[in-house]
Amino acid sequence: MVTSTILSDLGTEIVIPVCAVVGIVFSLIQWFLVSKVKVSIDKHDEKNAFTESLIEEEGINDHDVVQKCAEIQNAISEGATSFLFTEYQYVGVFMIAFAVLIFVFLGSVNGFSTSFQQCTYDTTKMCKPALFTAVFSTISFILGAITSVISGFLGMKIATYANARTTLEARKGVGKAFIVAFRSGAVMGFLLAANGLLVLYITINLFKLYYGDDWEGLFEAITGYGLGGSSMALFGRVGGGIYTKAADVGADLVGKVERNIPEDDPRNPAVIADNVGDNVGDIAGMGSDLFGSYAESSCAALVVASISSFGNSHDLTAMLYPLLISSVGIIICLLTTLFATDFFEVKTVKDIEPALKKQLIISTSLMTIGIALVSWIALPFSFTIFDFGVQKEVKNWQLFLCVAVGLWAGLIIGFITEYYTSNAYSPVQDVADSCRTGAATNVIFGLALGYKSVIIPIFAIAISIFVSFSFAAMYGIAVAALGMLSTIATGLAIDAYGPISDNAGGIAEMAGMSHLIRERTDALDAAGNTTAAIGKGFAIGSAALVSLALFGAFVSRAEITTVDVLTAKVFIGLIVGAMLPYWFSAMTMKSVGSAALKMVEEVRRQFNTIPGLMDGTGKPDYATCVKISTDASIKEMIPPGALVMLTPLIVGIFFGVETLSGVLAGSLVSGVQIAISASNTGGAWDNAKKYIEAGASEHARTLGPKGSEPHKAAVIGDTVGDPLKDTSGPSLNILIKLMAVESLVFAPFFATHGGLLFKIF
Amino acid sequence: MVTSTILSDLGTEIVIPVCAVVGIVFSLIQWFLVSKVKVSIDKHDEKNAFTESLIEEEGINDHDVVQKCAEIQNAISEGATSFLFTEYQYVGVFMIAFAVLIFVFLGSVNGFSTSFQQCTYDTTKMCKPALFTAVFSTISFILGAITSVISGFLGMKIATYANARTTLEARKGVGKAFIVAFRSGAVMGFLLAANGLLVLYITINLFKLYYGDDWEGLFEAITGYGLGGSSMALFGRVGGGIYTKAADVGADLVGKVERNIPEDDPRNPAVIADNVGDNVGDIAGMGSDLFGSYAESSCAALVVASISSFGNSHDLTAMLYPLLISSVGIIICLLTTLFATDFFEVKTVKDIEPALKKQLIISTSLMTIGIALVSWIALPFSFTIFDFGVQKEVKNWQLFLCVAVGLWAGLIIGFITEYYTSNAYSPVQDVADSCRTGAATNVIFGLALGYKSVIIPIFAIAISIFVSFSFAAMYGIAVAALGMLSTIATGLAIDAYGPISDNAGGIAEMAGMSHLIRERTDALDAAGNTTAAIGKGFAIGSAALVSLALFGAFVSRAEITTVDVLTAKVFIGLIVGAMLPYWFSAMTMKSVGSAALKMVEEVRRQFNTIPGLMDGTGKPDYATCVKISTDASIKEMIPPGALVMLTPLIVGIFFGVETLSGVLAGSLVSGVQIAISASNTGGAWDNAKKYIEAGASEHARTLGPKGSEPHKAAVIGDTVGDPLKDTSGPSLNILIKLMAVESLVFAPFFATHGGLLFKIF
Repeated sequence: MVTSTILSDLGTEIVIPVCAVVGIVFSLIQWFLVSKVKVSIDKHDEKNAFTESLIEEEGINDHDVVQKCAEIQNAISEGATSFLFTEYQYVGVFMIAFAVLIFVFLGSVNGFSTSFQQCTYDTTKMCKPALFTAVFSTISFILGAITSVISGFLGMKIATYANARTTLEARKGVGKAFIVAFRSGAVMGFLLAANGLLVLYITINLFKLYYGDDWEGLFEAITGYGLGGSSMALFGRVGGGIYTKAADVGADLVGKVERNIPEDDPRNPAVIADNVGDNVGDIAGMGSDLFGSYAESSCAALVVASISSFGNSHDLTAMLYPLLISSVGIIICLLTTLFATDFFEVKTVKDIEPALKKQLIISTSLMTIGIALVSWIALPFSFTIFDFGVQKEVKNWQLFLCVAVGLWAGLIIGFITEYYTSNAYSPVQDVADSCRTGAATNVIFGLALGYKSVIIPIFAIAISIFVSFSFAAMYGIAVAALGMLSTIATGLAIDAYGPISDNAGGIAEMAGMSHLIRERTDALDAAGNTTAAIGKGFAIGSAALVSLALFGAFVSRAEITTVDVLTAKVFIGLIVGAMLPYWFSAMTMKSVGSAALKMVEEVRRQFNTIPGLMDGTGKPDYATCVKISTDASIKEMIPPGALVMLTPLIVGIFFGVETLSGVLAGSLVSGVQIAISASNTGGAWDNAKKYIEAGASEHARTLGPKGSEPHKAAVIGDTVGDPLKDTSGPSLNILIKLMAVESLVFAPFFATHGGLLFKIF
Repeated sequence: MVTSTILSDLGTEIVIPVCAVVGIVFSLIQWFLVSKVKVSIDKHDEKNAFTESLIEEEGINDHDVVQKCAEIQNAISEGATSFLFTEYQYVGVFMIAFAVLIFVFLGSVNGFSTSFQQCTYDTTKMCKPALFTAVFSTISFILGAITSVISGFLGMKIATYANARTTLEARKGVGKAFIVAFRSGAVMGFLLAANGLLVLYITINLFKLYYGDDWEGLFEAITGYGLGGSSMALFGRVGGGIYTKAADVGADLVGKVERNIPEDDPRNPAVIADNVGDNVGDIAGMGSDLFGSYAESSCAALVVASISSFGNSHDLTAMLYPLLISSVGIIICLLTTLFATDFFEVKTVKDIEPALKKQLIISTSLMTIGIALVSWIALPFSFTIFDFGVQKEVKNWQLFLCVAVGLWAGLIIGFITEYYTSNAYSPVQDVADSCRTGAATNVIFGLALGYKSVIIPIFAIAISIFVSFSFAAMYGIAVAALGMLSTIATGLAIDAYGPISDNAGGIAEMAGMSHLIRERTDALDAAGNTTAAIGKGFAIGSAALVSLALFGAFVSRAEITTVDVLTAKVFIGLIVGAMLPYWFSAMTMKSVGSAALKMVEEVRRQFNTIPGLMDGTGKPDYATCVKISTDASIKEMIPPGALVMLTPLIVGIFFGVETLSGVLAGSLVSGVQIAISASNTGGAWDNAKKYIEAGASEHARTLGPKGSEPHKAAVIGDTVGDPLKDTSGPSLNILIKLMAVESLVFAPFFATHGGLLFKIF
């Protein structure tokens, strides 16, 4: 076995932070470029504003409009900030309680003893006391939670900074608006990827000061980072998802359906809440979510690596291979971004989707080379991987294939998602066509589309699992997940671009800008629906791989060697686990429904009681609607959150690790299907509606225009899809990841004290 | 170990056929009682008709109405018969092809050799040649298919015989109509249960003439009976389901929504097709389905028993314990039926649901005693059960608990289903209430209700599995399934009662009978929606248990001892298996949608081109609509049918038994959830609509009347629910059972020649 790596340990220690810093600098540059679009017209900028007027097409260049955009932007930003602060307060309390739980449970594994103990895997050695690992796990849990908060919060700040700028740039043409929205997405993508990497890198190095050569304990403690990240993400996704959809559904039901006023009309009292929602749900929630996936897949890979030959021989470069992949990913994504912003130019509406699609193809292709390079220089030619009790020999090219198969599976999932949710292809057009016979057929066709869209992604995931599992067991799965997430910066950029465009359209409408501007932002938004679905596809695909890897690590740590379906303990776990996503979805969908009903009542009340609201002379009370969404989401996020957080604890403590294994496997294989179908169904309905509204083809025009019967049916489908695609669907991938990482963190406790019920009987 | 049983083998050989014959005689008596309601008024019956006129309330007693009912009944019956014959022709060809496949594949296991071979389990003995087992498997496959056809066909004949009679009796009051509908359901229930038992009993005895003491081979061959039954059921459910819902959705979309004419209005050209559909889908399809479940659970129990101590010691009474349970079940159900028809009386609408609910409680309670009795007299006190390679000791009271836990889990599932689908409780009322804000919230709430309704049934199933698995391994699961199905005659009676009432309402409307009659049949039908959902709940619950038992038998037969989730081969099977129900649902829902679109076009065409159709002077062309439904369902049932039938073969041949095990487990745990939620969602939407229409409470009246905006929203929900509850949902339980039984039948082949792909690489 050749155990030396080409890249030295010192090199590794330099490369990782440098790449992270490059990512951060790049995102700051993008931010600077976005900031050049001015929304406030102070005296110093008078000249600038004058220059702008030269390229103005629409005759809307009075300071009033810009001022109005600035006001709306402010309102949205304040609403989002205040919601997130409220959310973080509640979640903060929960996090502290959970941190205490982690400390107590893990500390109790060895009876809070401060003496050294036998290592779990290499029983010939002595490892650090469980009590200290409990302390470090708690610290990394808190670090993960804080990083997740920062990721989500910064994303929101950038998005609310960019939305009005996109609107204003839309006056100059669709290409200019695209660049602003895309650059802003890139700010978020790079900040998040670099930040996540940097914090993890620093944490590992700091923990190493205590752990020294006990890498088993070190990386066990590090898994808390993933748990913290994902716990926050859960509440971010669920809370944000309920917020955004309560507002959206409520606004649409009264505004579009009853009052027949356009979407985002400033007369609609829920309109600010709706636009705030895009930022707290689709941006902050999604940011936390993908950060969680990234943190977890890194932790899963590290924890498995720590008990493999790298870990045993303390080969730092090979050990940090997962972080090196992410580091190279940042550089590759940086290059990829230039293709969208500098090398090519989006000129017309038709260029938007191809430009985004190119991002995926370019990043994937370049990254393949990057992975090959990293695998060549950072891995020994041959090494061994821990595989449920035995060491399995792996070659570096095999590990390259594991990462690459995950990466390419992501691209396939992206393309399939695009095919099923973009209105350029027949599936969405068929759904639009079914609106001819009303909302019922629209819903039937939409659900069928979602179900069908699951097929190929599942095969793609299955093939990645098979390949990576066969080559490198659980480590293979973990790095496959990392491969899928290695282009996360690009993925996030094209994903965040969607809600920013959505907001930009809202601001254009509210500021009373011309129809042309709205059409441009709508075109951006339609592409955004597709990229959002693609982003969710990535999130779900990677979640499936990540949670399988975590699951494997859990099983190893819990000291069981097989998870046999044909035992009563495992099978009941499997069937109940497969039920959990349904339970969870029922909660979140009902929450959106109930909150939307409250919103509807409030909006109706305002229309009925505020004089002159409909003719624009009265001013709606936006704040009450914001409050309804805030209160509903804070209150309603608790039960689904508790379901996910408590299930592994209850099952582990009372039923033991076998049943918990079943629960994890069941919720994974069932949840991934619902998540994919829910997000694609919702995306397809939204774009079917946009297809009819845009009327860009002969066929589309026979269905429209806005207000026709087929269009009304399409609006109903869109509304049904809202909670599916933005609340329950995307939260499900956190469900499956979070339960797995939580089980892994608590595995030492469950292995020692779990399965009470079976011990009693 | 005490190995003798109280009941002698001779006693067993007498008890089983006697109970079956009693069941058949009882159903003939019920038929005779139903037949006393006359729909044709020939000369001899003039006096009878005169007597009837004395109790007439509505002034609709002219011969014309009766004549019209007879005509409509004829049209429905002819339509249903002709459809079923067409269906059977196509399926017949498929069955013959599949029979050949079974023979060739199983015959090839030992190279078509006619010499004796080593037994699989007891390798010290010699067993009959594989070639002959191939022949007998093929024969029992064909027998199962034929029995399934007979079950479905007879059910349809009875239902189309009873529908007009129920309508006519409704003139005398709701109680009289209830009795006719219920008795007709009982005819079907008892015929099916007794018939299935008798054919199985005779087949076993005939096969024994050849097999003699080789019970391992005998009962392996008998599993073909379950496969045959379920294969037919699949096509019956899918074909019938597409037929009925294409017609229903098509009729509703044009009639109710566009033309604003009542449901079942004779002017609607699709009305006959709609009523035919109830009989071919909900009656014939469901009959075949439950027969399949019954046949499979018996086969699963028998095949496991044959390699347990009963089988080894050739103890016939204990061996036929599963059949004895079913025999006693017939007698218990007979007693239970008398409670509905003779001991108590349904007088008002309010009595209907309690009367049906009582049936469930009474049959379950009595059956518990019956099971205890059979377990006492037909089992030795202690015996051993084959448990993946080892023999596990079981006591007779433990086996009693296994059967009882299945039985009571069925009751719990029934009650929960009732709670979520009956409009007497808050879940459906909440869904109805959400119609205030339109169809979108109705759909969101309905989907959430369906998801939520999964929770308790899954826990009930999980507990039954845990208990029965712990006590008696796979045999325990198989007899738990039998326990759940032991009251099948009652279950089918209350289930079949629904579509009969639905048809009765249709006939009343078409014959132009008064509004009061329609209200009565509607009340029967509303209870019928709930019982249909309960029936589906039983079908799904038992399917879950049955397929797990078959899965266990398959694993034993395929000579693998563990199904470890954490191996690549099994896990990819698991995740792909969990995807199959989505693929299948996408196919069936899209089929219904497309067929409904065709129907809509045809109905619109007729309304537009046939002069005087709307004012009742023109005559619609019913036949074309019947033809559209027929053609669509025949054509569209092939792809989903092929998916289910071919998946086990492809996976087994190319990927081998481990991956196939994963597929079976995955499709089981995922399919059961979708099936329950789909059928409950659909049932709830239907009853939410009926709740608004009936306006029986203050709350309901604020939502109605018919034609109000909330009612329109409710109609959309109902239409979306149609394919969910009557096509994709109920077909899914066949999917999970069928794949399991097919794998079991082909297990010897897969074990010998399977897994080509992995063998090559």
